[in-house]
Amino acid sequence: MEINKMLEKLKNLKYENLYQNDFFLTWDRTMDELQSIFTVADCLRHLRENNISVKIFDSGLGISLFRDNSTRTRFSFASACNLLGLEVQDLDEKKSQVAHGETVKETANMISFMADVIGIRDDMYIGKGHTYQKNVAEYVKEGYEDGVLEQRPTVVNLQCDIDHPTQTMADMLHIIHEFGGVENLKGKKIAMTWAYSPSYGKPLSVPQGIIGLMTRFGMDVTLAHPKGYEVMGEVVEVAKKQSQETGGTFTITNDMDEAFKGADIVYPKSWAPFAAMEKRTNLYGEGKFDEIDKLEQELLEENKKHIDWACTEEKMKLTKNGRALYMHCLPADITGVSCETGEVDASVFDRYRIPLYKEASYKPYIIAAMIFLQKVKDPVKMLDDLMSRNQLRLRK
Amino acid sequence: MEINKMLEKLKNLKYENLYQNDFFLTWDRTMDELQSIFTVADCLRHLRENNISVKIFDSGLGISLFRDNSTRTRFSFASACNLLGLEVQDLDEKKSQVAHGETVKETANMISFMADVIGIRDDMYIGKGHTYQKNVAEYVKEGYEDGVLEQRPTVVNLQCDIDHPTQTMADMLHIIHEFGGVENLKGKKIAMTWAYSPSYGKPLSVPQGIIGLMTRFGMDVTLAHPKGYEVMGEVVEVAKKQSQETGGTFTITNDMDEAFKGADIVYPKSWAPFAAMEKRTNLYGEGKFDEIDKLEQELLEENKKHIDWACTEEKMKLTKNGRALYMHCLPADITGVSCETGEVDASVFDRYRIPLYKEASYKPYIIAAMIFLQKVKDPVKMLDDLMSRNQLRLRK
Amino acid sequence: MEINKMLEKLKNLKYENLYQNDFFLTWDRTMDELQSIFTVADCLRHLRENNISVKIFDSGLGISLFRDNSTRTRFSFASACNLLGLEVQDLDEKKSQVAHGETVKETANMISFMADVIGIRDDMYIGKGHTYQKNVAEYVKEGYEDGVLEQRPTVVNLQCDIDHPTQTMADMLHIIHEFGGVENLKGKKIAMTWAYSPSYGKPLSVPQGIIGLMTRFGMDVTLAHPKGYEVMGEVVEVAKKQSQETGGTFTITNDMDEAFKGADIVYPKSWAPFAAMEKRTNLYGEGKFDEIDKLEQELLEENKKHIDWACTEEKMKLTKNGRALYMHCLPADITGVSCETGEVDASVFDRYRIPLYKEASYKPYIIAAMIFLQKVKDPVKMLDDLMSRNQLRLRK
Repeated sequence: MEINKMLEKLKNLKYENLYQNDFFLTWDRTMDELQSIFTVADCLRHLRENNISVKIFDSGLGISLFRDNSTRTRFSFASACNLLGLEVQDLDEKKSQVAHGETVKETANMISFMADVIGIRDDMYIGKGHTYQKNVAEYVKEGYEDGVLEQRPTVVNLQCDIDHPTQTMADMLHIIHEFGGVENLKGKKIAMTWAYSPSYGKPLSVPQGIIGLMTRFGMDVTLAHPKGYEVMGEVVEVAKKQSQETGGTFTITNDMDEAFKGADIVYPKSWAPFAAMEKRTNLYGEGKFDEIDKLEQELLEENKKHIDWACTEEKMKLTKNGRALYMHCLPADITGVSCETGEVDASVFDRYRIPLYKEASYKPYIIAAMIFLQKVKDPVKMLDDLMSRNQLRLRK
Repeated sequence: MEINKMLEKLKNLKYENLYQNDFFLTWDRTMDELQSIFTVADCLRHLRENNISVKIFDSGLGISLFRDNSTRTRFSFASACNLLGLEVQDLDEKKSQVAHGETVKETANMISFMADVIGIRDDMYIGKGHTYQKNVAEYVKEGYEDGVLEQRPTVVNLQCDIDHPTQTMADMLHIIHEFGGVENLKGKKIAMTWAYSPSYGKPLSVPQGIIGLMTRFGMDVTLAHPKGYEVMGEVVEVAKKQSQETGGTFTITNDMDEAFKGADIVYPKSWAPFAAMEKRTNLYGEGKFDEIDKLEQELLEENKKHIDWACTEEKMKLTKNGRALYMHCLPADITGVSCETGEVDASVFDRYRIPLYKEASYKPYIIAAMIFLQKVKDPVKMLDDLMSRNQLRLRK
Repeated sequence: MEINKMLEKLKNLKYENLYQNDFFLTWDRTMDELQSIFTVADCLRHLRENNISVKIFDSGLGISLFRDNSTRTRFSFASACNLLGLEVQDLDEKKSQVAHGETVKETANMISFMADVIGIRDDMYIGKGHTYQKNVAEYVKEGYEDGVLEQRPTVVNLQCDIDHPTQTMADMLHIIHEFGGVENLKGKKIAMTWAYSPSYGKPLSVPQGIIGLMTRFGMDVTLAHPKGYEVMGEVVEVAKKQSQETGGTFTITNDMDEAFKGADIVYPKSWAPFAAMEKRTNLYGEGKFDEIDKLEQELLEENKKHIDWACTEEKMKLTKNGRALYMHCLPADITGVSCETGEVDASVFDRYRIPLYKEASYKPYIIAAMIFLQKVKDPVKMLDDLMSRNQLRLRK
């Protein structure tokens, strides 16, 4: 799409409520708001590809707060901040006192005197990550309103226990481009399926985020997993409701083949059972580490029974014309490469390597678009101004 | 105060000796120099609040060298550098060879080829931190004079064993704003008092820095602590001398009530006895770790005897009209929140939460003002230029 | 040299092949290419010294990937990136999944969506570092060609198992300046000699890099070491061939005095025997850690026999007029300072401290020049433009 068409599209969308606001869950936001983010992401990419700077900040900090190791999301956030002119500062909690209650409020304000955005990844414990992000957002909003902070630092959810919006929106932007536009998605079948991995306890935010987002586009969304690997009930309800509203379907099955059959898109990926993760969180809270070990053993035992849940060449043949778009948030557990038996055959993974990398390449732009719409009141005018200004990203 | 009045004030101050110089201790500097820093800090804040960029560096590094964990000071330094256009690079000594003698000189030069400022925090051992900072400053000055470095990296003391100037000057700027101007401080009573905390060995730089700074403004400064919790003798001498020169008073008492009585400002905070810290440093140097453990036990025993030294609601009633300004460098040990019994009642702390956060919010500007005056020969003209340039911090 | 003369010189050099290309080994590059890097380094330094900004990037990331602790090279890379306008992001492999095979390709692409340059230091295992750097470079080039990456991130070798080009080229630029121009180097004798250090296993990249670079300038290059301390055979062949082509000489001796005799430049430095390092790498691959310990013991025993290989005052007297230029990549093992007996007498080291620091000061500019020539198609015009633009680095 041409840049002018993108701007035209943006003009007709209602995005006001993104301004000066936080981004937690995709299903909190209207379709117009999501579309605005996709469109701004495309615009920013277009400008950068044409060597036009989109720096809107002359100075300012982007705080990254990762409660888990991360490479891709960390670099995506750093790239997005740098693109817009913010310098990233990592809050390393091991070097600080962020803890509970009053102290989170305090630290949130103490690091935010010159922070425009705070990116948080906190996906480890059920019921914790989302709450933590909301708290931080609330505390710095309060700090802004109390005159402590000169600007309101907005929060971007870089993964919580419920949703992973920067991942799933990058996934969706990839799908939009692969299928030639958002208007072509109606009735397309996407299979979000569990897959076997020898490791234990992978987060649920991706499958939950995918069913929570894809059901809004009139797609036929199938969630498949072995019995016992159910995801969070609230998100299932959200997905059901949304699929009804958009004229799509939402199906849950315990049969991987059924999910793959005729699918336009497959997204096979390991995750831990929600109920078990909830139990683990409770045991953790009670300090019962022996029982956590026992639980882990049981889960690994159970896990092994489903080693046939793999995205093999054979399974791929079940998909539409045998060539559904294969997706993954990466890194994948590849059979014979990163583990003995994993989520996907090496030959399938290799065939889709370039599209997989492209899928990932949208994430910095999704994050940048979220920040852009949080900070810029009239994004159409601003994008226009940036084009007129025509400041080169690299003088070459 | 209006920006023009601030500039007018600055014009009448002598700040030349801050230019191309280091900042170690507040009592090394003239009142005019301190006032210049306060005024420039206010100007920089004013410009930023009006979305005007104060970037004076197009490129350049700000080196941060922290020999202790830190959140607030780290982020304050990073914010100040970013505000002025410097990129922060942390020197992680665990990844380097900074040690003794020749090697400090070498490393100081090796990291400084493009460094404009070096922020150092080294507060752990008595007699070490200040000396270390002076050494680093001297070594890079030498490097500059020898033609090794193209610019002279100036040092900013981000806390040493003697003083914590960026903290106490932020505290003072808060007081100036709360009391409506520096001219209103004469005769105001500030109680810098020890308070009980279950933890051991908190640095002395804050109480020392407070008595070393506040006695210069004609204030009635009372230092209160249990017997045995004396601070560094040299700083007490400085405080005495200064209070005489400025027509204020400086009193030491072992009675917390006496200190609180009629106080306009209270600053209750735990610290370790200077003599014990000196002993610990010596034992550490001699490698007598058993004796260090023993010393720590003794100190904790002694500490427990003073559990009544707390900033309670009752104590607050003793202050001027029962509503002195409560101050703290944060984080505070709050009774029933961060510990069972601590420095301050939760209700007192809560009532002053917003002013406490504001107090902290001055630190990035104090640091930025110190750097600004170290680097800019004619700050009045530069501030004028920055206003005329009117480059937006955020295009919105 | 004046800036106009530098630009004139640059006009007559062929540097096209540096553009959009990686930098691995100096002997991969033509003399014109090396001269271009020296000249651009001098130009960038000249401009910075005159407070003229050489920022060519408005945004963009410089990725640093260090597989070993580092202070100097880390800060040199950070300084170079900052000078040109790139923000450094460290890839901490402990927080990521960079490993073998497919995963290196994946991570290389995942961190590079907005990366313009990747600086890699990987010098620990023989046969690994160079290969790893080539792989990363190849993978991101592929990513660029496949449309995954919008720009091609070029690799700069910040030290590998074979060469240490940013060090040796900084060394050479120091020599050029000390001897008044590259045209004065013909026939000058440089002694690259082994020296005793109590530590074990120092990398070979410096001696190899030195003989691989200095033999291209018609110099008389002598490599001296005890028997058994041979360097990589391939690099010796390169040095031999180059010395013949340029009318210089290349001599290997086991006699330190012979090397020092009449030398214009001496570079005494410890390194580990290549054969032993190769053996260690193999043992490491086979997981034979006991044998590695045994090997280390043997090497330390052998090492002690050569304690007389030291750059003493006496040895210095053997050099040309007793005052050869003493060089070292730093940090040096100084007798009586950083160890009991080491590579160099304290009095020799002290006498050369300032030149040694200056030697090191060229590294940021060498790195910046490499990046500049990788990214800028017409460097003469660009340098001209930067001068005309006359943007101040520091408004003072």
